[in-house]
Amino acid sequence: MNIAVYPGSFDPVTLGHLDIVKRASDIFDKVIICVMVNADKNPMFSLSERMELVRRATAKYGNVVADTSDLLLAEYARKVNANVIVKGLRVMSDYEKECQMALINKKINPDLDTFFLAASEKYTYLSSSIVKEMARYGVDLAEFVPPEIMTDIMNKSSHRR
Amino acid sequence: MNIAVYPGSFDPVTLGHLDIVKRASDIFDKVIICVMVNADKNPMFSLSERMELVRRATAKYGNVVADTSDLLLAEYARKVNANVIVKGLRVMSDYEKECQMALINKKINPDLDTFFLAASEKYTYLSSSIVKEMARYGVDLAEFVPPEIMTDIMNKSSHRR
Amino acid sequence: MNIAVYPGSFDPVTLGHLDIVKRASDIFDKVIICVMVNADKNPMFSLSERMELVRRATAKYGNVVADTSDLLLAEYARKVNANVIVKGLRVMSDYEKECQMALINKKINPDLDTFFLAASEKYTYLSSSIVKEMARYGVDLAEFVPPEIMTDIMNKSSHRR
Amino acid sequence: MNIAVYPGSFDPVTLGHLDIVKRASDIFDKVIICVMVNADKNPMFSLSERMELVRRATAKYGNVVADTSDLLLAEYARKVNANVIVKGLRVMSDYEKECQMALINKKINPDLDTFFLAASEKYTYLSSSIVKEMARYGVDLAEFVPPEIMTDIMNKSSHRR
Amino acid sequence: MNIAVYPGSFDPVTLGHLDIVKRASDIFDKVIICVMVNADKNPMFSLSERMELVRRATAKYGNVVADTSDLLLAEYARKVNANVIVKGLRVMSDYEKECQMALINKKINPDLDTFFLAASEKYTYLSSSIVKEMARYGVDLAEFVPPEIMTDIMNKSSHRR
Amino acid sequence: MNIAVYPGSFDPVTLGHLDIVKRASDIFDKVIICVMVNADKNPMFSLSERMELVRRATAKYGNVVADTSDLLLAEYARKVNANVIVKGLRVMSDYEKECQMALINKKINPDLDTFFLAASEKYTYLSSSIVKEMARYGVDLAEFVPPEIMTDIMNKSSHRR
Repeated sequence: MNIAVYPGSFDPVTLGHLDIVKRASDIFDKVIICVMVNADKNPMFSLSERMELVRRATAKYGNVVADTSDLLLAEYARKVNANVIVKGLRVMSDYEKECQMALINKKINPDLDTFFLAASEKYTYLSSSIVKEMARYGVDLAEFVPPEIMTDIMNKSSHRR
Repeated sequence: MNIAVYPGSFDPVTLGHLDIVKRASDIFDKVIICVMVNADKNPMFSLSERMELVRRATAKYGNVVADTSDLLLAEYARKVNANVIVKGLRVMSDYEKECQMALINKKINPDLDTFFLAASEKYTYLSSSIVKEMARYGVDLAEFVPPEIMTDIMNKSSHRR
Repeated sequence: MNIAVYPGSFDPVTLGHLDIVKRASDIFDKVIICVMVNADKNPMFSLSERMELVRRATAKYGNVVADTSDLLLAEYARKVNANVIVKGLRVMSDYEKECQMALINKKINPDLDTFFLAASEKYTYLSSSIVKEMARYGVDLAEFVPPEIMTDIMNKSSHRR
Repeated sequence: MNIAVYPGSFDPVTLGHLDIVKRASDIFDKVIICVMVNADKNPMFSLSERMELVRRATAKYGNVVADTSDLLLAEYARKVNANVIVKGLRVMSDYEKECQMALINKKINPDLDTFFLAASEKYTYLSSSIVKEMARYGVDLAEFVPPEIMTDIMNKSSHRR
Repeated sequence: MNIAVYPGSFDPVTLGHLDIVKRASDIFDKVIICVMVNADKNPMFSLSERMELVRRATAKYGNVVADTSDLLLAEYARKVNANVIVKGLRVMSDYEKECQMALINKKINPDLDTFFLAASEKYTYLSSSIVKEMARYGVDLAEFVPPEIMTDIMNKSSHRR
Repeated sequence: MNIAVYPGSFDPVTLGHLDIVKRASDIFDKVIICVMVNADKNPMFSLSERMELVRRATAKYGNVVADTSDLLLAEYARKVNANVIVKGLRVMSDYEKECQMALINKKINPDLDTFFLAASEKYTYLSSSIVKEMARYGVDLAEFVPPEIMTDIMNKSSHRR
């Protein structure tokens, strides 16, 4: 049984993330979206809010669950019996850092391998940061985020303005 | 059931290729190594020789087979019911070309997705071209190619010198 | 008056090329598509055929013309009073080579500057080479090339098979 | 009429920026240098100081003006009737981020297109950050910044030491 | 006599750094490891602690010394009569930034040239940041840092947890 | 004693090559320019002509010699007691291939290390291929090649036209 972990900060989850989730869920028996603590000191959503948004946006996938952890990713994977990490690659500059992480994760947990998926062409430009910037300026987010969470983002943005 | 195709020219198969095969065979139910016609006008081994070397080097993996095809990769995958293409990424310059191919393959066959694996750090420098160059100069190939095929390469190289 | 030259081998012209032509023609007073001799020794279309296809595909743009030249690009630009070279950038690996060409062209003709346009996201994967490969395998080209030239490509491909 | 916006934080404006301004002003009818709020929490110059320095350094160009805005760039362009964004590209790592911004800006304002100019070879190493670091150590700035603003930078640096 | 400066923040020094030091010390008459003030606002070790760790880890090399400086690197090199800067390159994204620094350093001190060494393949994934993250999670550091300093890192990490 | 090999095809030697030679000769006791067999099937100059041009252009450097070899580079270095390979890096896309070669050379000859020098900014655009293309079109080569060999290139180019 192949269990894949899809890690990220998902602040907030975008259509680009969901594209990766969908494609991973077609291949692996179970996909665990692991919402990590955000390096960003000033996130838009708290960890629990981000998990809640991910859950709502992926409710339709039977083999996808959301979780969070403060373990090292390679250790977390061991704990949940995952043998795969899934990462989306948008641009070449993502690639080198992700390769380094894949090598280090394999060193810590040799039973764990990282599989990369290229972002679909319509999502290569899309990131959580861009969504947050668009939201801040009141741009319509329909092409960027799942409909289930759009109101949450708009509410949060107006509070922050 | 996940069937993965691992395409390449494998002229000849290296330890870097086998590392990808091994890792893919741990995850997918079946891995088909598809030996493609070589763009190189002057290959070291013929198509059938390359298939034979791949077969010998992967005999130990129960769920790995070697095949060849003159179809477009996306069409070949459809024919053999494969839903995954596996590619190894060694360097960033591989990445962009491979992403383009992944997008075009998905366009032709939407049921087919490409999964990338980062080369293990000890194989990032390794390619079939480098093996051929080493062989031509009589360098010991033990760190580069599987033992089962080393004699074939050395014989072929001495013929070519 | 700004006259832009858009150079390339256009073997054959794709929807990606036309996207750049359209965007350049919105900004510059005149766009000259300059069909260059193809480095590829075995082109699908001859120089004159390629010019004819470009002409047909751009007939609707009042300020776009097709031309050819065996001059150095920077000299050709001088001859036709062009002050701009337009280039499309699809991937990062295009970028460095194009920057070098831009610097060298400016050195030869200091009145000439190169403007780069990023390929639209739906065309980042698209190139003449990919069109030719698709055509060779009989894949439907509707998403890749302008309708005005599709029959020409299909005819040519079947001759070559 | 082509109106180009050249956005940046210009903290402070360098000879590399002015090279882009000069080249853009040769092609476009009007160039608006838009001084954006600096992501850097601790800028050397305030927004109004940066605008003043830009104005002084570009006074000789009849069709160049300086402005500032807290709008999203694509919205600002709409407001001032600009149809072009101009960006300088120094290194490949700039390129991917800029392409993403170009795609997103076009999505928000389809009448707006981004034109990239390669930095002249003598300015590929030059950035506002490097100028600030040089200034901090008292290095002569004559090759880096326009003479009109050199005293301002030196005064500011000595205050900060 | 060739004196090389190997600059960095070394927070803490890793086996990857020591690989570069060893290779530089084979070629240059003297190698000065210059521990720079850390851009990281929250370093694991203070400047003097980092120097002490570097000293301990390089005690076995007769021609290697550790130093620190708050001068600009090109000025520091002049002060200590160094004619070479040595830098390790791990990934392509390091490369562009380092090239810019090399050009600027040569501009400030024309007698100073930068020599780059490619990281050994087993250290391409390794950085001080990764060591700190591993330490924070209690991962065994034997493959990452010199044995002489391992206890210091572990002590420091447990204090920080 | 440090002996450096600077390998290349030098068809023909450019001012960019000479910049690297000069900088290497400042640091290493002896620099051997090793003119390699050209992968280009249709070189402008023969191997012996290229050596002669290199010799003439570097006559002024007391510690620089030109040589040629059909050995593998790592073996050649062993034969001439060289412990260093020197390579110039112009663009990021050079970098990955050169790193791979550096790793493989070290594997074959562990006493041999590769040192990279960044091209001076005025030569980042310059290559032998560009010189040949400029020559073919009769462009003045004074900024590209050493004066000692300019006539040879012009003679050869006119023969080829």
